[in-house]
Amino acid sequence: MQIIGVRTPLIKPGDDIVNMLCGSLNENEIFLRDGDVLVLAESAVATAEGRMVDLSTVIPSKEAEELAGKYCVDSREMELVLCECDDIIGGVPGAALTITKGTLSPNAGIDGSNAPEGHVVLLPENAQKSAAKIRAGMEEFCCCHLGVIIGDSRTQPLRLGCVGMALGTSGIVPVEDARGSKDLFGKPLNITRKAVADNLVSAAQLLMGEADECIPCVLIRGAPVKMVKGSQEMPIFTPEECMYYSNIKQK
Amino acid sequence: MQIIGVRTPLIKPGDDIVNMLCGSLNENEIFLRDGDVLVLAESAVATAEGRMVDLSTVIPSKEAEELAGKYCVDSREMELVLCECDDIIGGVPGAALTITKGTLSPNAGIDGSNAPEGHVVLLPENAQKSAAKIRAGMEEFCCCHLGVIIGDSRTQPLRLGCVGMALGTSGIVPVEDARGSKDLFGKPLNITRKAVADNLVSAAQLLMGEADECIPCVLIRGAPVKMVKGSQEMPIFTPEECMYYSNIKQK
Repeated sequence: MQIIGVRTPLIKPGDDIVNMLCGSLNENEIFLRDGDVLVLAESAVATAEGRMVDLSTVIPSKEAEELAGKYCVDSREMELVLCECDDIIGGVPGAALTITKGTLSPNAGIDGSNAPEGHVVLLPENAQKSAAKIRAGMEEFCCCHLGVIIGDSRTQPLRLGCVGMALGTSGIVPVEDARGSKDLFGKPLNITRKAVADNLVSAAQLLMGEADECIPCVLIRGAPVKMVKGSQEMPIFTPEECMYYSNIKQK
Repeated sequence: MQIIGVRTPLIKPGDDIVNMLCGSLNENEIFLRDGDVLVLAESAVATAEGRMVDLSTVIPSKEAEELAGKYCVDSREMELVLCECDDIIGGVPGAALTITKGTLSPNAGIDGSNAPEGHVVLLPENAQKSAAKIRAGMEEFCCCHLGVIIGDSRTQPLRLGCVGMALGTSGIVPVEDARGSKDLFGKPLNITRKAVADNLVSAAQLLMGEADECIPCVLIRGAPVKMVKGSQEMPIFTPEECMYYSNIKQK
C-alpha cells in the first residue's frame, strides 16, 4: 500500500478542484489506476465550493451573542454555528460542542484556519455529493475506477490530538461489515465493523498535516478497499444506539 | 510513504515476538531502515506476554455477577474487567464502558476474539514498556533506529466501525504539537495537535483487518514522524480537560 501527497496551488473560492488536481497529478507524473483512492481535505473542497464566509457580513442573533459569551467564540461565528449545526450539546472556552450532519464536531466544523483574516470556512454543504462529483470528474480524466473521500480532522474523547474522519465518500464501501468473519481460532468475530474510510483519512492526515503544507489531496494506492459503482451513504449511529452517547446525558 | 503487512505464524503465550518478527521479515526479504515504524497488534503482544486467561480459572465476585447480569457479559469476564479497569462509567448489552489505562474502552479492552474457546486476552500490562522492549530487540536485530507502536482498535462516539488507537509507543513522538505553525494565510493555527501515533495505527489497521489475517505487524516506511531516542509517554487528557467528557455527566 502506498500513500502519496499531491501538492496543489492555493485553492480559492470558485476554483475547479478537478482541474487543479488533474494539473498537479500531470505535473508530478502521477498516473491514476483502477482502485486508487483520493482523500481530499474538506477545507479545500469547501473553499472551492464557495463555503468561505466573510464574518463582516454576518449579523449575530441574540442567542448567538449569549452562546458566544458563554463559550468565548466570536458572536458572528456562533451565528454560523447555529445555522449549520443540528444541536449544541455543550462547549468549552473557544468551542461549542455540536452535532453537525450527524457527527460530533466543535463549532459545527467551522474553521478560521486556512482562510484569510476575518473569514471562516463552513463544512461542504453535502460531502457525499461533493465526493460523487469530484469522482465523476476525476474518472473522466483518468478513465479508471476511483474512490474519493472528503476528509476532516477531529479529536476523540480523552485523547490528545486530531485524527482523520470521513465526511463523505464515493466509489468505496466506507464501513465494512466483518460480521460472520472468523477469528484466528475459527470462532465468529466479536468486533464487527471496520471504519475503512475513517482509517484512510487518518492515513492521509499523516501527509496532509494541519498547517501550511498545501497538500489538500492524498493518493492511496493498493489499499484493500471494497469498490462500488455508486456512492454508499456513511452509516451513522443515532445517539440512542451509540455506546458512548447512550451512557451519558447532557448537563 | 509505504505500508507493508508482515504475516507471522500464530502467536502463542510465551512466544518471543521479536524472534518471530525477525524470522518473518527475513523470510519476506524485508530489510528494516532508519525511521521505519512497526505497528503491532496489542492482542498479539499481550498473548505473547502471557496475558491470555482461561475463564474456567476465574471466580466472579458478587459485584461482577451483578454487572454481568446488567450488561449481559460473562460474569468471569466481568470479574477481569473489574480488575483491569480504572472505572466503569456505563454499558450496553455485551459491554461495560470503562476507562482503562486512561482511555475509554469497552470491557477494559478484554477480548475473546483471537483466543481459544473459553479464553480471553487482557490488554498488555504496560504497552509503553512492551513497545520499548520490542523496539530494543528489533533495533539490535536490524542495527537501525525504529519506532514501535502497540495498537488497538476502538469505536468513536456516533460513528460506526473501528479505527486505530495507540496504547503505547517507543522511539517516536506520539502526539505532535503543531501550535505555533502557520496556516495557508500565515496566521497561527487553531488546531493544535496531531495524533500521529493514532493515525499510524489507523493506517496499519487497513492491512491488519480484524479477523483471521494473521498480520499482527505492519511496517510503515517514509512517514513524516519525529523520531526520539527513548520513549515518550502517551499524553492523555484528564476527564476535566476533555471537551467531550467535561460536557457530560454519568447517568
